[in-house]
Amino acid sequence: MTTGKINVSVENIFPLIKKFLYSDHEIFLRELVSNATDATLKLKHLTGIGEAKVEYGNPIIEVKVDKEGKKLHIIDQGIGMTGEEVEKYINQVAFSGAEEFLEKYKDSAKDAGIIGHFGLGFYSAFMVAEKVEIITKSYKDEPAVHWVCDGSPEFTLEPAGKTDRGTEIILHIAEDSTEFLEEFRIRELLRKYNKFMPVPIKFGTRKETLPKPEDAPEDYKAEEAEVDNIVNNPNPAWTKQPADLTDEDYKAFYHELYPMQFEEPLFNIHLNVDYPFNLTGILYFPKLSADLQVQKDKIQLYQNQVFVTDNVEGIVPEFLTMLRGVIDSPDIPLNVSRSYLQADGNVKKISNYITRKVADKLKSLFTENREDFEKKWNDIKIVLEYGMLSEPKFYEKAGAFVLYPTVDDKFYTLDELKDKIKDSQTDKDGKLVVLYASNKDTQHSYIAAAKDKGYEVLLLDSPIVSHLIQKLESDNENLTFARVDADHIDKLIKKDEEQLSKLSDEEKEKLKNILEEIVPKQNYSVQLEPMDSNAAPFMITQPEFMRRMKEMSQAGGGGMFGMGNFPEMYNLVVNTNHELSASILNSTDKPHQEALVKQALDLARLSQNLLKGEELTAFVKRSFEMIK
Amino acid sequence: MTTGKINVSVENIFPLIKKFLYSDHEIFLRELVSNATDATLKLKHLTGIGEAKVEYGNPIIEVKVDKEGKKLHIIDQGIGMTGEEVEKYINQVAFSGAEEFLEKYKDSAKDAGIIGHFGLGFYSAFMVAEKVEIITKSYKDEPAVHWVCDGSPEFTLEPAGKTDRGTEIILHIAEDSTEFLEEFRIRELLRKYNKFMPVPIKFGTRKETLPKPEDAPEDYKAEEAEVDNIVNNPNPAWTKQPADLTDEDYKAFYHELYPMQFEEPLFNIHLNVDYPFNLTGILYFPKLSADLQVQKDKIQLYQNQVFVTDNVEGIVPEFLTMLRGVIDSPDIPLNVSRSYLQADGNVKKISNYITRKVADKLKSLFTENREDFEKKWNDIKIVLEYGMLSEPKFYEKAGAFVLYPTVDDKFYTLDELKDKIKDSQTDKDGKLVVLYASNKDTQHSYIAAAKDKGYEVLLLDSPIVSHLIQKLESDNENLTFARVDADHIDKLIKKDEEQLSKLSDEEKEKLKNILEEIVPKQNYSVQLEPMDSNAAPFMITQPEFMRRMKEMSQAGGGGMFGMGNFPEMYNLVVNTNHELSASILNSTDKPHQEALVKQALDLARLSQNLLKGEELTAFVKRSFEMIK
Repeated sequence: MTTGKINVSVENIFPLIKKFLYSDHEIFLRELVSNATDATLKLKHLTGIGEAKVEYGNPIIEVKVDKEGKKLHIIDQGIGMTGEEVEKYINQVAFSGAEEFLEKYKDSAKDAGIIGHFGLGFYSAFMVAEKVEIITKSYKDEPAVHWVCDGSPEFTLEPAGKTDRGTEIILHIAEDSTEFLEEFRIRELLRKYNKFMPVPIKFGTRKETLPKPEDAPEDYKAEEAEVDNIVNNPNPAWTKQPADLTDEDYKAFYHELYPMQFEEPLFNIHLNVDYPFNLTGILYFPKLSADLQVQKDKIQLYQNQVFVTDNVEGIVPEFLTMLRGVIDSPDIPLNVSRSYLQADGNVKKISNYITRKVADKLKSLFTENREDFEKKWNDIKIVLEYGMLSEPKFYEKAGAFVLYPTVDDKFYTLDELKDKIKDSQTDKDGKLVVLYASNKDTQHSYIAAAKDKGYEVLLLDSPIVSHLIQKLESDNENLTFARVDADHIDKLIKKDEEQLSKLSDEEKEKLKNILEEIVPKQNYSVQLEPMDSNAAPFMITQPEFMRRMKEMSQAGGGGMFGMGNFPEMYNLVVNTNHELSASILNSTDKPHQEALVKQALDLARLSQNLLKGEELTAFVKRSFEMIK
Repeated sequence: MTTGKINVSVENIFPLIKKFLYSDHEIFLRELVSNATDATLKLKHLTGIGEAKVEYGNPIIEVKVDKEGKKLHIIDQGIGMTGEEVEKYINQVAFSGAEEFLEKYKDSAKDAGIIGHFGLGFYSAFMVAEKVEIITKSYKDEPAVHWVCDGSPEFTLEPAGKTDRGTEIILHIAEDSTEFLEEFRIRELLRKYNKFMPVPIKFGTRKETLPKPEDAPEDYKAEEAEVDNIVNNPNPAWTKQPADLTDEDYKAFYHELYPMQFEEPLFNIHLNVDYPFNLTGILYFPKLSADLQVQKDKIQLYQNQVFVTDNVEGIVPEFLTMLRGVIDSPDIPLNVSRSYLQADGNVKKISNYITRKVADKLKSLFTENREDFEKKWNDIKIVLEYGMLSEPKFYEKAGAFVLYPTVDDKFYTLDELKDKIKDSQTDKDGKLVVLYASNKDTQHSYIAAAKDKGYEVLLLDSPIVSHLIQKLESDNENLTFARVDADHIDKLIKKDEEQLSKLSDEEKEKLKNILEEIVPKQNYSVQLEPMDSNAAPFMITQPEFMRRMKEMSQAGGGGMFGMGNFPEMYNLVVNTNHELSASILNSTDKPHQEALVKQALDLARLSQNLLKGEELTAFVKRSFEMIK
């Protein structure tokens, strides 16, 4: 038996780093600016604990494009490196300085925000550069050095004349990467990855008008000065304490995150926890429009203020992916598979924490300013309803703040609603019937009929409402929901009182025969009812159960299999106590009788939005004839 | 000046390989099965050119889960390795055997389909395994060897007793990766990545009923046998010649690709090119439903029959991402940024080639069986219309096959349509007016009016149709489109003949005053027209230009900025030659006159789908009153 050590030759690994290190080459800039940030924060830490006897000052990081010279410079004023350190950290691939630093200073450095996840970061420079130079001077009293490598992987190292502290990286951009010599491209990358990094980043300069001096003469001419153009905000709102932020600050930060978004967010939730995991962030409830697909993937994930991704699937519970904002946590594992994420205990805790915080915030918003909460209801309901269906923990808490609006813009919690309607809307079997409509316009006549009886009618118009209703019914004994057009109102909530019929049983039988001859059987089944003589003579209803199952099947994830394709089934409810019934029954002129039934049927269909196309054109023409 | 070589120490690189090699750990299985495939195809090649004096036979690759022992085995019957080769290919990280092999046999091996893109592939095993064993015997007459490494990176190498040719890899699955000991998970991965790899892959066994022998006795009892369960199809349709495939073969392959898809594809396009780039594949036009978002990302990208991704953005022109099927090309760079892809010359050529092939196929379908093409039109039009708007090269070719259907289900090309309507639909200024509707139901009365004049009415109902019309108008001189409800029909196509007015100018003035007092000004502007006395007395129209600009703005990417939020503007066109106009004019009973106008306005609004909610309920109630 032989034993040995697997051998990694640098000639072999280098081309692979170039090709495989990151699937997206543009990442190199994030890595180099992260390194510069680390170098700066390390110095801050060392001066803070008195280990470095130098002035920390106000260091910045500068990024410079030299298009003509085909070079990109990244310059920091941080800790710098001695020749020995270059040998150690640069010439040894994957010897991450940050890790060693954190290990050495672990107690004091933990909160310094040193990034240091990206061990191979520096080498990503070779993904886009054919030659890389480092000119660096340590904060220690040692000469500067100049390191050059063309990726061969031979390097040279020699003393340099640099006198100020810090590191300058010079990338000689390769032929196939000249996009990174374009100013707009670099600005785009800095904006994407480094927008909130904790050290100011300078990219170019801009002119700024100087403030007018107090003793300025009357003919004072405004002066301009060239100032550094800082592209990042080193102190984003989520890193601050909620107590230090006003509503305006939160809104301003929202627009900083989404510059193309003109609408204001509805409210925000500040996340801040450090045990058992570290997480900060701010989530916003936006106004949601109809196209929910487009609205996802707006939450940005950071690690120590470095942008990582805007795909937070698996980290944020699915129903909250429609929110916006940022989450910053060093405890979320990167570069792992979806299934690993789902199994990771920390990630599960983070997800539960976010759910709980959102529920708590909603409850406090409801309690503190109910009127305002009601105003926002329509913009947030889809998220909450979806949360009730998908997250049992959220459902448990939702009773305290989820609202049920009526067609008259009153808002009830479920308990309030039950209390409000228990006297009037309990049927003769003791069931409490909640009436609802899905559309105020198209169901207007049915809503009007229910309101005439003094009933409350909810307006439930979300696409998943049939699923929600189904769940509420199964969790609340003796509670049942019925859409206002599911039957005529006296049948929806059956009371003991019996309506007297003006027609005898025999007459009813005869009327039914007449109607069934004229009304198309395949679409409508005729149902005679003795109703109030002022109620509509003809109306079309659609039984609750079938309609709901169809809707659930169409919305996905429930209902009965295949029901989505069932034909629509309607009842034609005829009020036998209405004058029109008598007219039809007593008409001896066959064509007139038929015309009467057809016109009445068409009017009932109009109310249910079922008269269309050629039939509508014929109806309108006939009606014009009647009035001319 | 010092010079030196960057040093990569294996202790440092190993943890990084584990963490960074692939963002998705599950990739390890694809890599190991690819290696096994390569080993098999290399042997095939060597026996084929006579270099290996062994029997190639019918080699398979076997994947085995040993849940109890926490092991996963991948076993091939390929070329195998000698001890020396293990030293060379395994103990040296990133020394890709495939590359060297291809270099050596480049002329003969090119077409052998050796995968070999994944130099580091073997090491991906350490992403999921705490220990890896290799037991391998070369096709050469040398003893087998056994290699073991726990990722430390110390390894041991010793002779082994294996007598049959090939390589067995044994992964001792790590604690955090036990998901890969689940049979269903491995089956899922084999299905995802290896479904069409060129060597049969065995995963378990299954029972199969043996065929009945010809001389079976009458009481013959069917016998079962345990057979290898092969999970892949080594010869997928796209690797064959179109001439060897029937329509049924193409359909069967579609269902093999999308087992959950029950609908048949409409037709397919077989791609096959080897200069200036290599690409094979089959694209299918599916029936598209309304939700286009959901339909994207169904095309699968392969390299030499290994699944790579189902995101072909940038490779396939955007309008074709709604298609389905596979593309297999070794010439598409992987792991590169989107912007690099877009700048890559080969990728651009591939995209253009696909566009051209699709256009050619559509043209030949149209020419060869127009009737069938027309039947499919509604299912493919959205792709083609989008292509016309987004790809100038496709637009150029589209004239030959893009169809314009009428409301009566006739289909014209643009040239045919122009020819058909040039006599009847050229207006007095020489403009050819194409009439269209967007909905047969809601615009029925307007369509009927146009058809009464003998005009053709197109049915154009795609969401982007206003953009398309705009483009057609700007590219075809003297061609203009008007929706049937944009004005009354005599005004849409103005002819020289003048309709005589039954009313004097004075009477018209008086009628207009009466109407303007009753009709709400903010919604409708009254327009009196002397029309045929049988035409509708009142009708509501919406001017073409404003409506189209609004629609373009809503569909995105055009129209006038902000127009999407403009209020709707309508005209109330009153036929002064209709009896009703006279009745209104001559009515001396003010309330009756007002009721007449309101009922007529409501009827006109019904025809334009504008009467809703409370107004509709009131209209229906009033109309019931009129007939009882």
